[in-house]
Amino acid sequence: MPLVSCSDALSCRACGDGTMDEKERNNLYQESLELHEQHRGKIEIKAKVPVETRKDLSLAYTPGVAEVCRAIQKDRNMAWRYTLKSNTVAIVSDGSAVLGLGNIGGYAAIPVMEGKALLFKKFAGIDAFPICFESYHTDFVDEVRNIAPVFGGINLEDIAAPKCFEVEEALQDIGIPVMHDDQHGTAITVLAALLNACRVSGKEFADLRIVVSGAGAAGYAITRLLKCIGYNPEVCTMVRDIIVCDTQGIIHRDRKGLYANKYKFILADETNRSGRTGTLADALEGADVFIGVSAPGIVSGEMIRRMNDRPIVFAMANPVPEVMPDVARDAGAFIVGTGRSDFPNQINNALAFPGVFRGALDACAERITDEMKVAAAHALAGYVKKPNREHIMPAVLDHHVVKAVADAVREAAVASGVARDIR
Amino acid sequence: MPLVSCSDALSCRACGDGTMDEKERNNLYQESLELHEQHRGKIEIKAKVPVETRKDLSLAYTPGVAEVCRAIQKDRNMAWRYTLKSNTVAIVSDGSAVLGLGNIGGYAAIPVMEGKALLFKKFAGIDAFPICFESYHTDFVDEVRNIAPVFGGINLEDIAAPKCFEVEEALQDIGIPVMHDDQHGTAITVLAALLNACRVSGKEFADLRIVVSGAGAAGYAITRLLKCIGYNPEVCTMVRDIIVCDTQGIIHRDRKGLYANKYKFILADETNRSGRTGTLADALEGADVFIGVSAPGIVSGEMIRRMNDRPIVFAMANPVPEVMPDVARDAGAFIVGTGRSDFPNQINNALAFPGVFRGALDACAERITDEMKVAAAHALAGYVKKPNREHIMPAVLDHHVVKAVADAVREAAVASGVARDIR
Repeated sequence: MPLVSCSDALSCRACGDGTMDEKERNNLYQESLELHEQHRGKIEIKAKVPVETRKDLSLAYTPGVAEVCRAIQKDRNMAWRYTLKSNTVAIVSDGSAVLGLGNIGGYAAIPVMEGKALLFKKFAGIDAFPICFESYHTDFVDEVRNIAPVFGGINLEDIAAPKCFEVEEALQDIGIPVMHDDQHGTAITVLAALLNACRVSGKEFADLRIVVSGAGAAGYAITRLLKCIGYNPEVCTMVRDIIVCDTQGIIHRDRKGLYANKYKFILADETNRSGRTGTLADALEGADVFIGVSAPGIVSGEMIRRMNDRPIVFAMANPVPEVMPDVARDAGAFIVGTGRSDFPNQINNALAFPGVFRGALDACAERITDEMKVAAAHALAGYVKKPNREHIMPAVLDHHVVKAVADAVREAAVASGVARDIR
Repeated sequence: MPLVSCSDALSCRACGDGTMDEKERNNLYQESLELHEQHRGKIEIKAKVPVETRKDLSLAYTPGVAEVCRAIQKDRNMAWRYTLKSNTVAIVSDGSAVLGLGNIGGYAAIPVMEGKALLFKKFAGIDAFPICFESYHTDFVDEVRNIAPVFGGINLEDIAAPKCFEVEEALQDIGIPVMHDDQHGTAITVLAALLNACRVSGKEFADLRIVVSGAGAAGYAITRLLKCIGYNPEVCTMVRDIIVCDTQGIIHRDRKGLYANKYKFILADETNRSGRTGTLADALEGADVFIGVSAPGIVSGEMIRRMNDRPIVFAMANPVPEVMPDVARDAGAFIVGTGRSDFPNQINNALAFPGVFRGALDACAERITDEMKVAAAHALAGYVKKPNREHIMPAVLDHHVVKAVADAVREAAVASGVARDIR
């Protein structure tokens, strides 16, 4: 059996590894099929109370359980105290935008969601259960709202834009945290990376001129967080200017067809204050930061050379980044990050979501507030005591990161008034 | 800590134990609250594949998982082969009819559903996950249909009649078994008990004159199975006559108000061919069998004395039966069964549902057919090699029962053409 070196075990699902050849990739695929068939999936349910004797059952089931039911009937919040709710998250997807695979539907998405459940358990000790909807179903919001009782949080996953924005927005009042990880997990991680990139480069965060490439779930959420769009201004530090590019180039107010997509319209309205037009290359002229959540190889060394002094380049397309790190560095990039673990500065949402949900559950939070997201980013950045050009982020597999992020998120939940008292 | 003797750890959730005094009951309740608080619920999610190394993650998650997704995208049935679906059941409830507690809603029902998940795992090795709906929600059917992808079966639980009938009926075409346990688990168990009661008493099954007390979920399902209402006549053995009584007495065609409830109307139309009217006592005159799924203490010794020779009395109200076993026996009952474990002949749906779902999952069944239900009852009855008056049923805690039932159900699934080939 060949030792497969996986460059990015936490982001790319579709194309295998940028460094694997076809034979290695096919071997990995075959081995994965065998693993899944052998175990018939990857997660199971276990009892966490004894169920050996009749007495055990009389406590965990009938008749003892009746008293627990009555306590929750009197005060619904007691579900946090007495049931799985306190440590359980639903991973909800319709499989409409599975990374690298596209709209494959609820059935084909199951293995991904089951895999994500493994990460929740391993990184954060959270019991996550996959809920996969048939993708034809339209009433996504009601659906999630109605399965909420047993869950302490909802992780929305791999849902196509703009539906992912609408669904997340509509679910903010259901009494438990609802977070689309592809948006906010990524945005939190990018903010953390940017904070440390400023520490290392000496640039002032608020003065950064940033270009975001990609206006899907991740690009939109990153832009919102950096530009404080819809965020509490007391919590958020707004950068001077952001320009967002999509496949048609720079998003600006006068571009045709923007009104068809509410979210692109918001971007046009809130970003690009200088009214630039043109291509990604045009946008990058004089910019301090490139943030790529778009497509492989679209940034050249020449484009980086025309950026501002000490440019910061986060090329996070997977598995092949917008620009390869060596090309970026040769062109003068001061700090380079990618989504991959085989290069320095891995910027990966697996750094954020376990701690965010752990902290939210520890607070029995009603929702995830701006304070909690920003606190998560600062905790993540602060975890790296002495950042340098090659080390602005914690390691994805460092378990202590989760606790640091979770503690900050829990405290922020309390401070922002969304923690529940279940004593 | 007092040793609490629980007479029926598998049926009664509300009132505690018929044999417990108030102090014992309160102690049990307190202990149950403490257990639930200490563990924050009763079930958790565990990985069943290794997740230690980066290689592990590359197989279970990205990038290896992409190949599994593609296999399922090509053929949806491959979800049975490669995912948790093959061993996972949803325990779905809106908490509208929780035994002994009534309509307590989705939140307060969580501890019961979590407890049922323990039974699924312990008895049948099945991974069951509770899905509790807000009870105000009306679109129950769509809701279940849309969460179906990750589940290999749906166990409907504690849903009020007549909604439970409508919901179950509407969900029969979703491609996985959907069974309301309070109906069919109970009906299967009663049929098994009756088969063995006939063996012991020498009565002919088809000639039995039966009185069912209770026209809710259990009473309706028992009657349907014994009278073959809606059942495949080639599978079902029809008894000669059944009379069903509810709180207003005998259900007959001319009774007022029947049209308001489709299911009571069906009972009136299909049962009581001799057109009897009157009370439960009137119904019992000359009857061979009393089947009680109704209320405590409503049957007297005098009523049993007026039954046919060698009367069979299944008094299954919990925790206090329709008639206490000693009273029934003193009045001449030949065989007496209850729902309780502290009397002989415990007739409890915990004997049926684990094996039924185990067998259905083992067959990757598309639905639960009449053949499978009837096969389960025969397997359950046949498991008792030498039944006698005190021993017509297997013990609820005998693990071998599940395998016997499961094997019969799986074979029946194959024979009735609903098994999936996932090779």
